Order: sequence, then C-alpha cells, then structure tokens
Amino acid sequence: MQRIPRRAAIKTVYPDHSPISAFRFARPPSSLPPVSEQDSPTAITFASREDQASVDEASNFCPKFNADGLIPALALDEESREPLMMAWMNEEALRRTLELGEAVYFSRSRQELWHKGATSGHTQKVLEIRTDCDQDALILYVRQQGAGACHTGRRSCFYRTVTPGDPSALNFVQERAFDPDKVYGTQAP
Amino acid sequence: MQRIPRRAAIKTVYPDHSPISAFRFARPPSSLPPVSEQDSPTAITFASREDQASVDEASNFCPKFNADGLIPALALDEESREPLMMAWMNEEALRRTLELGEAVYFSRSRQELWHKGATSGHTQKVLEIRTDCDQDALILYVRQQGAGACHTGRRSCFYRTVTPGDPSALNFVQERAFDPDKVYGTQAP
Repeated sequence: MQRIPRRAAIKTVYPDHSPISAFRFARPPSSLPPVSEQDSPTAITFASREDQASVDEASNFCPKFNADGLIPALALDEESREPLMMAWMNEEALRRTLELGEAVYFSRSRQELWHKGATSGHTQKVLEIRTDCDQDALILYVRQQGAGACHTGRRSCFYRTVTPGDPSALNFVQERAFDPDKVYGTQAP
Repeated sequence: MQRIPRRAAIKTVYPDHSPISAFRFARPPSSLPPVSEQDSPTAITFASREDQASVDEASNFCPKFNADGLIPALALDEESREPLMMAWMNEEALRRTLELGEAVYFSRSRQELWHKGATSGHTQKVLEIRTDCDQDALILYVRQQGAGACHTGRRSCFYRTVTPGDPSALNFVQERAFDPDKVYGTQAP
C-alpha cells in the first residue's frame, strides 16, 4: 500500500536566514487510507544508525526512537511559524505521516496511532519535516486545518508564558479560537 | 542565592496571530553565577500538579518531568523564529534557566547540568518561555549568541529536511556558520 506522495516545490513563506527547500505532499485528504493498528504496515523504511559523526552528517534518515519507541515531534505553523503542539511518534506514526502528508502521532495515553484531526477535522497538512543533528527530534511545518490544534480550543497548545519575575505563575497569551465541547464533545482529543 | 530577574516589557518581534506578552530577563551575562551540580540549589519552586483539567487552565506553573526527571525544551530564535535546537531540562536546569535568563539544559549523555554556550560562548538569552496545555513541554524564545547553536557548526540543529518523495533521504538546507573544531576543539559541545 506504499504510495509515496509526489513532491512539488512551494514558495517558502517564512523568513529563514538560510535558503531552504520546501515540499508539498500532494495526496488530497479525500484519498487518505484509514489509520489504525489493524492496517497493514507501510513499506517505508528508515536507515540504520551508525556512529554519532555519521548520523550528524548523514544524508540518510535514521531517526532515533527512545526506550518507549517514540520520537518527539513539534508542529510549527508553516505561515506564522507559531509553535502549535508537541507530540510523539512511533515508527509507524512517522511512516503514516510520510505516506499521508498529514500528521499522525502516537497517543501515549491511549497507546495507539493518532491521526490528528480525524475526529475534529483539525488535521495538519505536513509541508516539511526536519530532523536535528542526532536525529532524535522532529520539526513538522504544518498547515493547520480548522480553528486550532489544541484540545482546549486554542489555536496552539503553547498558550501560556512563564512569568520571569514570578516563575510559579503563568500568563495566558491566547484566547480560545473554538469551543472544544462542540468539536470534541465528551471524547478526548 | 535566589535573585529573580526583573521583568521589562519588550516589543514583540514575531508576527503571532494573537497578542502576546513578552519579557526580557534583565540580568547581564557578566553576573552569571557558576552552574554546576555542586552549587546550592536555587530557591525557585513550581506548583504541584492537580487533575488534567486543572493543569490545562491553571495559571500556576507545574511542569511535568518524565520518568527520568526531564522535560523537553525547544529553543526557537526570537527574531527569525527558526527552530534552533531541542534539548532536555531537569528541575534544576529549569530553575537555573529562570534565574539566569540563559538556557541551562541537562545533558543526558554527560548526566549533568549544561549551561549552553559556557565553553563556546554561544549562550542563549531567554526572552520568553512557554509551556503547553498539559505542561510537559517547553518552548524557549532565545537570542542566540555567536554564530550558531549546533555543535556541527550550523546555526540550527535542524539543518536537514526529510524528502517526501524518498523518506530514507535527507536534504541539507543549511551551510556551516562556524568551524566547530575551532569553537569546541576536541571537547564535546
């Protein structure tokens, strides 16, 4: 069932210091295959990890999953560059994300694949994925569908800042963008 | 030894969708106290965690540390909003960060506090810290000192993108900004 998305250059919308190449996953959402543990696994494979120096300079993607089989993934809004959410992926979630072009995480609380937005409609179209020097973290530049990414009704999960003068206190810096009860009902996001 | 930085409003430099409040940690770098495990712990304390709903809407900062006592922290450039690096903090690293106004992480490989830039000079002045809905992740908006954050010599650790059409391959999207051998010598960053 491996159908690799076609790549197509898009205009880079954020003012990075260095030239970057950005790609659009081209499969339309309507053709999304179901995402569940029961589906046959995708055929995408990752490279094996060699020594640290090799990983740093490798042009092979060899993501490092932790003892729980997970890698952290931070979703950034591709336009505003606002951090939207941080979640985790296991190998299969990362494969599905690469295949679908939409963010698929692994829910640690439910211990299952989590196609973000499957119930709320607030999917995340993935435009670019970056990894870091030791390939144990991922950045996803996403186009957030719907009013927001957070189950509390905010656009971003990072809606509070720490107060330097009083580190025990938080400041709310975002209003709710949607009513979570209407979007999620009583179901967990 | 608790000396809480004074707060001072600064102009928000990134085009967020929502109004945000940003603060500048005001202590000059020259007054940094030494950072080591041997120092007496700081007096900053965090709130205790209640139920999930309470944490989501709390104005108390009650960060969640994982089984290893760590919380992930992603540093974003406060001007370009480029992701610079992802690292981890234990409670003491977070306290030091709040006290110093510069990023102090916990090195998992060395199992010790890691005042970023202590050897390279590439410190990170922390302008804002955000936490997410369940307070188990941190975003740091930082002013990166020196040419870059990455031990490989790039400005950002996220210098490679995954190729959608060939997920086993990475594209390099950043050049080296400095010679890591000259900055770090043979020492690990």
